[in-house]
Amino acid sequence: MSTERRLAFRVEYDGTDYHGWQSQPTGVPTIVGALEAAIEAVLGVRSPVDGASRTDAGVHARDQLAAVTIRHPIRPEGFVKALNARLPGDIAVLEAWDVPLDFAPRFANRGKVYCYRMYGGIVRRPLVDRYAWRVQWPLDEARMHLAAAHLIGTHDFTSFAASDGGHRTAERTIEAIDLTHEPHDLFVITYRGTAFMKHMVRNLTGTLVDVGRGQLEPDRVAAILAARDRRAAGPTAPPRGLTLERMLR
Amino acid sequence: MSTERRLAFRVEYDGTDYHGWQSQPTGVPTIVGALEAAIEAVLGVRSPVDGASRTDAGVHARDQLAAVTIRHPIRPEGFVKALNARLPGDIAVLEAWDVPLDFAPRFANRGKVYCYRMYGGIVRRPLVDRYAWRVQWPLDEARMHLAAAHLIGTHDFTSFAASDGGHRTAERTIEAIDLTHEPHDLFVITYRGTAFMKHMVRNLTGTLVDVGRGQLEPDRVAAILAARDRRAAGPTAPPRGLTLERMLR
Repeated sequence: MSTERRLAFRVEYDGTDYHGWQSQPTGVPTIVGALEAAIEAVLGVRSPVDGASRTDAGVHARDQLAAVTIRHPIRPEGFVKALNARLPGDIAVLEAWDVPLDFAPRFANRGKVYCYRMYGGIVRRPLVDRYAWRVQWPLDEARMHLAAAHLIGTHDFTSFAASDGGHRTAERTIEAIDLTHEPHDLFVITYRGTAFMKHMVRNLTGTLVDVGRGQLEPDRVAAILAARDRRAAGPTAPPRGLTLERMLR
Repeated sequence: MSTERRLAFRVEYDGTDYHGWQSQPTGVPTIVGALEAAIEAVLGVRSPVDGASRTDAGVHARDQLAAVTIRHPIRPEGFVKALNARLPGDIAVLEAWDVPLDFAPRFANRGKVYCYRMYGGIVRRPLVDRYAWRVQWPLDEARMHLAAAHLIGTHDFTSFAASDGGHRTAERTIEAIDLTHEPHDLFVITYRGTAFMKHMVRNLTGTLVDVGRGQLEPDRVAAILAARDRRAAGPTAPPRGLTLERMLR
């Protein structure tokens, strides 16, 4: 048997049909479950896969960072090819490379970029609906921009975290929040930060949308942060619009 | 019973799971079949739906034009809402309006815009793969641009038409072919023309890709047109990358 080695790899997935990156209880389809099954099919041994971000059910990733410890001399390029031949069409390994045995995806990045996409209108649009939230209200971007300014920086984000998130501290740093547009009338909020808590991006988005539609004054966001109470913030935006877009290295 | 009236409506669909707009034999899932079933569920009577473009199996539409003759006083807005409540998630009616009884979608437009999307690389990318073709070869856009220039204008497009297309004449006019880029490294060929024959956009795309990857010289496209022989042109690009993008009115 070969010696132990660790492979890091980047994964892209359409999360629509999965109960998230990983979930408890097991037995439901998850991204980790699909990856571990494919690795077992290729190498003959089940090995646990670690990831940088535990994306929720229905959330997508264009650049998830993962790692697995194996005892097989397979080359990283061969690992990518063999896994992709076995993975379902909505999950793919983009590249793989050797890393030290203590490599932890969660700590091996300088931060993450999440994009939350949405579109307007009273009618569902099948060609964008898989990766975007249909928001029925007109949104005032200038108001959202003002509100976002309060969120940038290092704050206690308790008001925007799921209460069952299991975090030790709610202090996080958001480096940037950008409002942009993409083809097909998509409106995108991009969040760049060092780390995010469970539901945090979706709760920030639900609150910014409340501001954009006129339900909440932009300056109220500072008070919501100060409240350190989940009930102070807006609703949780649906998972379909959220994509883990990029891992900062 | 109310008098006969005709409703025109715009449809958007993700064609991945359908055998095209309409197909023979019947009994397989088609867009028309889903629309007719929803109309029957709403109005109680099965009524044939006509469309402007018979998209192939797996091809998408952001702006298909359709029409149906009914005997029901339903308002167009009510028709849209009721249909969308019954249609599957991958088909939606965007709007509807009253038209004369002789309204024929196929002739009630000044032309169509089709987009063919592709991406490069040796690995499948799940978040774009549903609506784009993965092209494994590097493409030289300058060469494709030169080749496209030969196709613009009024020509006999026999070399680019499916032999079983049932067209009386193969003379068609292409007003523009544009090469552009979209986010997530998508490369897009946009075709604007009055009418297209069966497989024509996919055959044009397969030929332009052959030029881009260096398999075919750009000037050869003029000779392919002149040959009036399907065997002279390149392969048929897969349906997933093609979207009926816009109807010119």
